Amino acid sequence: MKKVHNFSAGPAILPAEVIKESAAGILDFNNLSLSILEISHRSKDFIDVMEEARALVKELMGFGNDYQVLFLGGGASTQFAMVPYNLLPQGGTAGYVNTGVWATKAIKEAKLIGNVNVVASSEDKKFSYIPSNYAIPAGLSYLHLTSNNTIYGTQMHSFPNSPVPAVCDMSSDIFSRRTDFSKFDLIYAGAQKNIGAAGATLVAVKESLLGKTGRKLLSMLDYQVHIKGESMFNTPPVFPIYVCLLTLKWLKKNGGLAWIEKINKAKADTMYDEIDRNSLFTGTCEKKDRSLMNACFLLTKPELEESFNKMWKEAGISGIKGHRDVGGYRASMYNALPLESVKALTDVMKEFEKKHA
Amino acid sequence: MKKVHNFSAGPAILPAEVIKESAAGILDFNNLSLSILEISHRSKDFIDVMEEARALVKELMGFGNDYQVLFLGGGASTQFAMVPYNLLPQGGTAGYVNTGVWATKAIKEAKLIGNVNVVASSEDKKFSYIPSNYAIPAGLSYLHLTSNNTIYGTQMHSFPNSPVPAVCDMSSDIFSRRTDFSKFDLIYAGAQKNIGAAGATLVAVKESLLGKTGRKLLSMLDYQVHIKGESMFNTPPVFPIYVCLLTLKWLKKNGGLAWIEKINKAKADTMYDEIDRNSLFTGTCEKKDRSLMNACFLLTKPELEESFNKMWKEAGISGIKGHRDVGGYRASMYNALPLESVKALTDVMKEFEKKHA
Repeated sequence: MKKVHNFSAGPAILPAEVIKESAAGILDFNNLSLSILEISHRSKDFIDVMEEARALVKELMGFGNDYQVLFLGGGASTQFAMVPYNLLPQGGTAGYVNTGVWATKAIKEAKLIGNVNVVASSEDKKFSYIPSNYAIPAGLSYLHLTSNNTIYGTQMHSFPNSPVPAVCDMSSDIFSRRTDFSKFDLIYAGAQKNIGAAGATLVAVKESLLGKTGRKLLSMLDYQVHIKGESMFNTPPVFPIYVCLLTLKWLKKNGGLAWIEKINKAKADTMYDEIDRNSLFTGTCEKKDRSLMNACFLLTKPELEESFNKMWKEAGISGIKGHRDVGGYRASMYNALPLESVKALTDVMKEFEKKHA
Repeated sequence: MKKVHNFSAGPAILPAEVIKESAAGILDFNNLSLSILEISHRSKDFIDVMEEARALVKELMGFGNDYQVLFLGGGASTQFAMVPYNLLPQGGTAGYVNTGVWATKAIKEAKLIGNVNVVASSEDKKFSYIPSNYAIPAGLSYLHLTSNNTIYGTQMHSFPNSPVPAVCDMSSDIFSRRTDFSKFDLIYAGAQKNIGAAGATLVAVKESLLGKTGRKLLSMLDYQVHIKGESMFNTPPVFPIYVCLLTLKWLKKNGGLAWIEKINKAKADTMYDEIDRNSLFTGTCEKKDRSLMNACFLLTKPELEESFNKMWKEAGISGIKGHRDVGGYRASMYNALPLESVKALTDVMKEFEKKHA
């Protein structure tokens, strides 16, 4: 099989051993002579998968029994609705920091349920930075952040001390670095970037936060129902959760968050050093807010686009087309992307400069 | 690999070639040198998967462009909420036929949204039959049916002519037989029995039914949002949908609903003939309402349980323990279960009778 340098923004690259093991589990899971696709989610074999995955998340987050971990269906987009539905009482106001398209979508859903106060926004400069030094009113029901913004290549490198319960959408940078997860009362993330396969969504929530809106909740949108059901109120997305378990085990086995942070920093340094050094490229966002996960950059001579595209495609590079809102290029460097792939891309950029500068 | 006769009630057996192909797609999808787990859902390769799966469902249902087909996350349990949320206006009343635990759960969610009229129920006899000859008031917003009831082994062998829009949860018998799907305005089904892997849910809905409640809908619970997004409003459960496509192709290639109905009838006949013939077993529900998918039966001498359990386990049979609400045994005979497996079970039942009668 030819080598592809997979910079896809998500669903994204997974560790090679996870791919191999998950395919093996489809053919024969746990030597049961059955596929993981064909067994009951109530079987001991799958309950073990679910429980190990939930426990690993707690361990990586450093959480005790006051937090509950769930693997749900519906994607982070369902969490945009579930967060206000579960946390925003009648007449209450939720605070949101608007750092891009995904935060905007979260705000839209919250407004269908209650009042929203956008306490900070970077919309004025096309979301090319992370707002700082904003006030967080103490009367808010919660504060909602988006830790990483794939489209713009921005990332929060620190989190505010919130006087109210803090919620974070970590879909695109969860488990990419050491993080003080305890700053948050609720964290959610779609699985398809750093933790597994599309179809599963991770939620970690402080249980004491729940059940306080006075609202009668639809069962599938009620965190307490899922907690009571031990993340199996209904048939969960079995295989995507299995891929999460394999990926979390890979992360832990290799050294956890400290290990992956070092690798992710090396990849980002390599990438941004080249963007800044190379006269034919320029970054799109404020340097201090650059994401370790997604590097966005433009050609300084847009007329050379075709030539550059040809070169990276020939080098086996895939998935670096920028989002239509920003244009140019986006190199997504999620956990499983090897440094070697980033070097392959920066090599092409160097060669491209030699050819055209 | 040893042969297992997989009677699991769901997630359930899939065709051997689907298992093989889906594992291959994880290692290398469409000769891209990439896993299907690692590609963008917006890539042409995956859009083709989604569109082919949606088109095959329409073809198998005989639907034209007035119906829209979606593959969503969240399971049939999310549909329990989405149906009334999208179809039941303020002050309206929905009709439900209560044929068991799953219908009861659907009723519970509908009651959180509006008024419910249970137009018929078989709860009086522990859901051991399908109600018939009930009146359907013309003023209902819709009528909700559950076509097959896994726990009790009952199935609707005909559907009422409804004067109001009809909705059917076909989770456990979809595409198991020729069906007049046009009797329904909305059909939904969790994928993990007859159409694919857990994590995907099929919805087919007549578009003209939607947008009439006056309610402002949360995006992820709004069928119109998903229709507009061509079933990709957010990142869909990519791999479970791929397994659906492979299973639907398998079904079509082999002869479609007429073909599978013949096989399913042969399996059910073999199973029920043995239950009725064998003095040591008895069926649990009314004969006229017996399900082609799930045969529930009890030992006439419960003291022989251990001996019977030992025998079927030794024969490589898996997953026939009955649901706790009914007890005894349940042989789930979904589309992918071969007649050979049913014969393996009835052979054990015959042997068991010889030994103990």
